[in-house]
Amino acid sequence: MAAPHDPPRVRRRGRRSGGDDTRSALLDAARAAFAERGYDGATVRHIAERAGVDAAMVNHWFGGKEALFTASLHIPFDPAVVMPEVLAGDHEQLGERLVHRFLTTWDATGGAPLASVIRSVASHEAAARMLREFVTRVILARIVGVVAPDRPELRAALVGSQLIGMGLVRYVVKLEPLASADRATVVAAVAPTVQRYLTGPIDPS
Amino acid sequence: MAAPHDPPRVRRRGRRSGGDDTRSALLDAARAAFAERGYDGATVRHIAERAGVDAAMVNHWFGGKEALFTASLHIPFDPAVVMPEVLAGDHEQLGERLVHRFLTTWDATGGAPLASVIRSVASHEAAARMLREFVTRVILARIVGVVAPDRPELRAALVGSQLIGMGLVRYVVKLEPLASADRATVVAAVAPTVQRYLTGPIDPS
Repeated sequence: MAAPHDPPRVRRRGRRSGGDDTRSALLDAARAAFAERGYDGATVRHIAERAGVDAAMVNHWFGGKEALFTASLHIPFDPAVVMPEVLAGDHEQLGERLVHRFLTTWDATGGAPLASVIRSVASHEAAARMLREFVTRVILARIVGVVAPDRPELRAALVGSQLIGMGLVRYVVKLEPLASADRATVVAAVAPTVQRYLTGPIDPS
Repeated sequence: MAAPHDPPRVRRRGRRSGGDDTRSALLDAARAAFAERGYDGATVRHIAERAGVDAAMVNHWFGGKEALFTASLHIPFDPAVVMPEVLAGDHEQLGERLVHRFLTTWDATGGAPLASVIRSVASHEAAARMLREFVTRVILARIVGVVAPDRPELRAALVGSQLIGMGLVRYVVKLEPLASADRATVVAAVAPTVQRYLTGPIDPS
């Protein structure tokens, strides 16, 4: 584990260094703290203490508590960057942009990280709670007021159900032809679903 | 483990007996055999030998190889019974019937069995392969020729993605309000998706 007050380093990927040790110690401490105390209860100061590093390292390595939370869930994108990109532009193509972005992100990582997220959620109630908090605080908070006119929580849960299900079938179960279908095929089939969940009718007729 | 040629017993649930031992030994043997050899390679005779019971016990306890396969995946319904019920009647309400049936089945079991299926699929390639074979041989074989005019495999995979994703969010992640929404609300929101995947347009426009 790196000593506190290590000088900040340029962020590197792919090789082990003192900086990577700090980052890795913060991730381990964050997973334990978020699982035990929830998002609000786990403070940056507590996580840093637990990792044995200075609290400034959280900002240095992750940019803040929310991004550390996302990384601790093994989610390979930063919603603070991705969500504004997806939400910008015509709301009638929201479903298309969201599905396309989901596919490019997870196609790049292969199935292993998604399988890991799903496995831990299905194994530990604490991980399920972390995922609930992630959806509610990190994703939903950005949708409400921008789209989702009525019942934004239900709409977000429906979108989540289709996206995570598609990820499970494509990357983890690897059911053909969805596993190797090109992105245009998947977007064409799935985007109208996500679009309706976000902005269309979802009520009993 | 029960000796071979135990006399058949009335099927009981909820208490341990010689018959339950036979059933349980068959399930363990089936899981191992299907995981190692796939659906075709694992014969009833081989599974029964592995369990140390007579091959007739497979029919006695499960009605046949397909139902043993389904039970070995911890899937709490018999597709040979459920699928014809869902497929009968107006094809324009297929999505509604399918989502309703999915909800009544899994609402009754709670989340634990679904979490167990998902956990093993996300942990073991052999379990993922078993689920692929289940969808292809047990579910898809019953849909093709009845509905799904074109590209039945893609349509089945899309339906699977929405149903399993909804199950994951409702029963495992327990994300509100989907976790405790009443069935009518969920059917109204999700059935049109499943209906379109089965019989509607899924192509790039």
